[in-house]
Amino acid sequence: MYGLIGKMIAVPGQRDAVIDAILEGIKGMPGCLSYIVAKDPSNADAIWFTEVWDSKASHDASLSLPAVRAAITKARPLIAKFETSIETTPVGGHGLGG
Amino acid sequence: MYGLIGKMIAVPGQRDAVIDAILEGIKGMPGCLSYIVAKDPSNADAIWFTEVWDSKASHDASLSLPAVRAAITKARPLIAKFETSIETTPVGGHGLGG
Repeated sequence: MYGLIGKMIAVPGQRDAVIDAILEGIKGMPGCLSYIVAKDPSNADAIWFTEVWDSKASHDASLSLPAVRAAITKARPLIAKFETSIETTPVGGHGLGG
Repeated sequence: MYGLIGKMIAVPGQRDAVIDAILEGIKGMPGCLSYIVAKDPSNADAIWFTEVWDSKASHDASLSLPAVRAAITKARPLIAKFETSIETTPVGGHGLGG
């Protein structure tokens, strides 16, 4: 499995719009076992996302999906920066949906 | 929802034993929507865990479950330190099992 833990900072006031775009874009991505979006309670502009994929190849391929490309196009201008990006190797747990 | 993103460092050589204890302990925790354990590919002793709960109360209550207490007892001597602990407010996504 391949995992990502990331934090992005939205343009002030645009966090909810970024989250909406992401949640719309991540439906039905092949090989995606978990993709959870969270607000940072300590920073009104910060968004955490945690991802688990069956492989890095599935993650990379997802970036070419029409729904994902549309979400990136929509969200990109509303994101000030990517602050954290950590690759992980998930080994198990609860909530790894097919 | 209530979330946690954390990183712990195992005693050298004990990462797999810690992971086994955690995975054994987290089965069937009420209110746990996601609990994923991952290795850090850049540090042979590091473990990432990402959690989503229906509420902070469910998370706190889980620490009293017999299986969780047994896992903590087993893993605690094998953990060198907790390096990162971030609270989040998950808002949606894929893989939020009941």
